[in-house]
Amino acid sequence: MIRIPTRVILCLFAAACLSAQAQPADPLPSWNEGASKAGIVAFVQAVTDTASKEFVPPEERVATFDNDGTLWAEQPLYVQFVFMLDQLKAAAPKHPEWKDDPAFAAMIKRDRQALAKLGQKPILLMLAAANSGMTVEAYDKTVRKWLETARHPKFKRPYTDLVYQPMQELLAHLRANGFKTFIVSGGSIEFMRPWAEKAYGIPPDQVIGTISDVKFQMKDGAPVLMREAKIAFIDDGPGKPVGIYRVIGRRPIAAFGNSDGDLQMLQFTAAGPGRRFMLIVHHDDAEREYAYDRQSHIGKLDRSWDEAKAKGWTVVSMKNDWKTIFAFEK
Amino acid sequence: MIRIPTRVILCLFAAACLSAQAQPADPLPSWNEGASKAGIVAFVQAVTDTASKEFVPPEERVATFDNDGTLWAEQPLYVQFVFMLDQLKAAAPKHPEWKDDPAFAAMIKRDRQALAKLGQKPILLMLAAANSGMTVEAYDKTVRKWLETARHPKFKRPYTDLVYQPMQELLAHLRANGFKTFIVSGGSIEFMRPWAEKAYGIPPDQVIGTISDVKFQMKDGAPVLMREAKIAFIDDGPGKPVGIYRVIGRRPIAAFGNSDGDLQMLQFTAAGPGRRFMLIVHHDDAEREYAYDRQSHIGKLDRSWDEAKAKGWTVVSMKNDWKTIFAFEK
Repeated sequence: MIRIPTRVILCLFAAACLSAQAQPADPLPSWNEGASKAGIVAFVQAVTDTASKEFVPPEERVATFDNDGTLWAEQPLYVQFVFMLDQLKAAAPKHPEWKDDPAFAAMIKRDRQALAKLGQKPILLMLAAANSGMTVEAYDKTVRKWLETARHPKFKRPYTDLVYQPMQELLAHLRANGFKTFIVSGGSIEFMRPWAEKAYGIPPDQVIGTISDVKFQMKDGAPVLMREAKIAFIDDGPGKPVGIYRVIGRRPIAAFGNSDGDLQMLQFTAAGPGRRFMLIVHHDDAEREYAYDRQSHIGKLDRSWDEAKAKGWTVVSMKNDWKTIFAFEK
Repeated sequence: MIRIPTRVILCLFAAACLSAQAQPADPLPSWNEGASKAGIVAFVQAVTDTASKEFVPPEERVATFDNDGTLWAEQPLYVQFVFMLDQLKAAAPKHPEWKDDPAFAAMIKRDRQALAKLGQKPILLMLAAANSGMTVEAYDKTVRKWLETARHPKFKRPYTDLVYQPMQELLAHLRANGFKTFIVSGGSIEFMRPWAEKAYGIPPDQVIGTISDVKFQMKDGAPVLMREAKIAFIDDGPGKPVGIYRVIGRRPIAAFGNSDGDLQMLQFTAAGPGRRFMLIVHHDDAEREYAYDRQSHIGKLDRSWDEAKAKGWTVVSMKNDWKTIFAFEK
C-alpha cells in the first residue's frame, strides 16, 4: 500500500480547488461568437497547452497593447490632447511667446486639420513646455485631478469610463493564462500611469509610452525629479519596437493595435518564431462609438489594414464582434 | 448550525497548506545575526503587517538594486568591461580609426588608471561602436556565448558564479513578501538581461540600465532592431532616479547599492513618505572577495558612505555580516 501524507492530499485538493475557481465558463462574455473570438481562444489554448508543439513558457508570454483607439476611445481628439488644451490655457499667461506659434493657435481653436498637418512632435513639444518646471509628483496630481472633472463631449462621462469592456476581458483572460500585459502607446507615460492600473490591471512599470525629460535635483534640501520642456523618446510607429526593446527586453508573442502607428509593433511581433497573434480593432460602429479608418486624422487605419488582410491578422469589427463596447451600456 | 460547503473548507486547507510551505524558518541563512539582518527582517515585517501603521500595499512594494558590487563582484574590472575588451579586440580589424584613440589604447593595455581618468562615457561609447551594426538578437547571442567561456581571474569560475548568495536570499525574501524587485545599474541592459532571470529571479523587464540606441528597420524583408553606435541613456548617479521614473513609475521604498553611483537612488528612495530601507554593501573582505572603498577606481564608496552614516542607513560589512559570500564556498 502506498501511503500519501495528508498534507500532499490537501495540496492536491488545493490545486484542484484553485484552478476550478480560476476558470470561468466564458472568459470573453462581451465578445460575440465568431472568427475574432475563436481566434483569441485558440491562440491562448495553443500556447498554454504543455502538450502542444506551440507551447510557450509563461515567462515568454508577453502581450503588448496600443492604448488610444485600442483600449479606450480616441475620438473626437486624443484624450491627452484635450488635457493638453486645458493645461495650455492655464499656462498661457506665463508664456507670451506662444501668441505667434501656429501650434498654439491650432490647439486653442481646436483646429483638427491644422493639428493633423502639424503632426505629433510640435504638439507634444508644446505639451512638454506647458507642463515643465514642476516635479513629476505635482504633475501626476494635475493629471488625476483633471480626469476626475473632465467629461467626454459625446458620452458626457469621465474619460476613464470609455475603456472598451471586451478589451478589459481580453487583458484579464491573457493574464489568467500567465501572460504579462503591457501598454505600448504614443501617449505619454505620465498621462496613462495614474489610471491604467485601475482601468486595465496594468501597473505603472508595464506602461510604455512617450517620455519627457526629467532631471534629478535637490530642491530645498529634498531630492526631486523636475520635468524639462524636452521629449526624450517618442513611442510611436517605428519607436514602438524600440520602446519594447528598452523596457520589456523580449519580443511579444501577441500584439494589439488599431492604427498605422501600430504597424511596426505588429510586424515586429509577427516576425518572431512560433505561434503569434496580431489583432487590429476596426472602428466601424458610428452609433455606439465612432466609424473611421483610412481617411481619419486621428487613428488613421490604412497601411496596417492592408497588411492585416495580406498576412491574415485578426481584424475586429467593433460593430459585429463586440456585444458590449462600454460597461455603462448595460 | 452553520453549514460550510466542502469546497470552502478545502480552500481554507489549501490556503493554510500553501502558506505553510512558503515560510521557511530563516529566509536569510547566509546572513550572520546582527543589526543588518535584524534591520532587513524588521523592515519587511513592518511594511507587510496589515495591523502596522507602516503597512504598504503590495503594489507599492518596489525595491531597487544596483548590480555591480551590490549583487555580484565588480573587481578587478567591471565584468562588462572585460567583455568589452574581448569584443574590441575582435572588432579592431574593422576599425583602423581606433589606433590613435586613447580609450582604445587604455582598454587594450588594461590600464586601470587611464580608464578611471577617462570616465564611463567614452568607454561606453567605444563599447557601442564595437558592438553596433548587428541586430539585438545577434548581440544577445554574443553575450551569452561569452559568459559561457569567460572565467574570473581570481576565482577561476564563470562570472555568473560570482553573484552574492546573501543578496539572492534577500531578493527572494522580498519577493516572497510581495515586493517587485528591479535592477537599476550603470551597466547596459543587454549585458544583464541574458542571465539576470536565472541568477536573481529578475525578468528582463525589471532590468533597468544604460541603453544603446537601436533602430527599427526592414532587412531582407524582415523587421529587425539594429544596434547603433550611440548611447541613448546613461543609468548612473543622477540618472538612476530618472531610469526609475521612466521604467517603474513609482518611488522605491527600499534601495540597495554599494558605491557613489548609487547615492541619488538612495536619496530619492529615502525622501519618500512612510517607512523606508536603504542599504549599502561595504567591501571589506580581502580574503573571501575584495576590500575597497574611498580610494577605489571601481565602485568608489565615499559620499554614499558618509551619507549612510549621517542618515542611519544600513551598512553591510561583507566580512562580518555575511556567513557565505558565494554559493561555491560551501
